[in-house]
Amino acid sequence: MHNTARLRDFVQAFTALVNESDDEAYLLDAGELLLADLIRHDDWLPEAYSQPGLTEYRQFLLHCDPLERFSVVSFVWGPGQCTPIHDHKVWGMVGVLRGLERCEEFAPDPQSGKLLALGSHELHPGSIDLVSPRIGDIHRVSNGLSDAPSVSIHVYGTNIGAQRRNLYDPSSSAQQPFISGYANAEVMNLWDRSDE
Amino acid sequence: MHNTARLRDFVQAFTALVNESDDEAYLLDAGELLLADLIRHDDWLPEAYSQPGLTEYRQFLLHCDPLERFSVVSFVWGPGQCTPIHDHKVWGMVGVLRGLERCEEFAPDPQSGKLLALGSHELHPGSIDLVSPRIGDIHRVSNGLSDAPSVSIHVYGTNIGAQRRNLYDPSSSAQQPFISGYANAEVMNLWDRSDE
Ligand SMILES: [Fe+3]
Ligand SMILES: [Fe+3]
Ligand SMILES: [Mg+2]
Repeated sequence: MHNTARLRDFVQAFTALVNESDDEAYLLDAGELLLADLIRHDDWLPEAYSQPGLTEYRQFLLHCDPLERFSVVSFVWGPGQCTPIHDHKVWGMVGVLRGLERCEEFAPDPQSGKLLALGSHELHPGSIDLVSPRIGDIHRVSNGLSDAPSVSIHVYGTNIGAQRRNLYDPSSSAQQPFISGYANAEVMNLWDRSDE
Repeated sequence: MHNTARLRDFVQAFTALVNESDDEAYLLDAGELLLADLIRHDDWLPEAYSQPGLTEYRQFLLHCDPLERFSVVSFVWGPGQCTPIHDHKVWGMVGVLRGLERCEEFAPDPQSGKLLALGSHELHPGSIDLVSPRIGDIHRVSNGLSDAPSVSIHVYGTNIGAQRRNLYDPSSSAQQPFISGYANAEVMNLWDRSDE
């Protein structure tokens, strides 16, 4: 039995946060505590939302705020899989639930506009990375394991699957507009409490 | 292609309503206009949410407000299927999308406590029935067609699948507590706008 109440409680607490404020720094601070609590336990995410694609990583919508003020997404990477270099154009939090993730940061060179690699680090389960146009918004995320999937739970300050943003070509630094969508046509029903 | 935007727009407009007020009469008045608009077109409900059970009617959660201030449910009756006599203990709206529904109203006799049948009427597509403890809360709904399913879209002032309420025995008028739950473990993903 999955502990669906964990995700439902998180959604309700995060809804209360966005009802209080739309200040990015406040939401990242307070929201990070909620996300840390959610990813402390790996007993609530159904199988269907933790399967990588055959050839590519996948992103599954877990919850979208009805007013699109935030969304919660599970990202799943199989061995060898990584995202393209991309931005978000909104605040985001990456919390690792399972496995190991490698994050590489980039920023445009102020003179040439070419993308510069700023560095990289590894995220273990329970760790959280933050992004936004204010604090650094361009990165590439890959699976740090060669023999198992890695899964992280992301929260963004909008309906991220509908967000107009950009991919970046690593050699030319050329930008390409993209809208990611979601891998899933159906989301978890968090609201059937009849067996709780 | 299903016109998912109709349900998404309805959810967003209804969320704005419950953010404005929690007054039942106001929500029934203003909400009825939104529901009438939603059920005016039958081009948005996926097949999976309009299938009756083999032996019983079914209720599919379409959307639950994250703060559980309202829920939207599709009810589907096959030929010969009906609900038990039941109450809601909260306001509700029944809007017929497809087919024909027969509604029978009941109320306890003030002297004996026995259930009295108050009358019945038929609802055609586009029509809306209202219930609540204030305006009449006990009814039985059945399919008015003998050769096809009927489908209605219901909105309630809580997470109705988790609501503690009652069934009524038609002969003894005895009450039995029940929590309905939902037939579906997954709900529509209303938020992938990438193909719109
Ligand atoms: Fe990212
Ligand atoms: Fe009812
Ligand atoms: Mg926004």
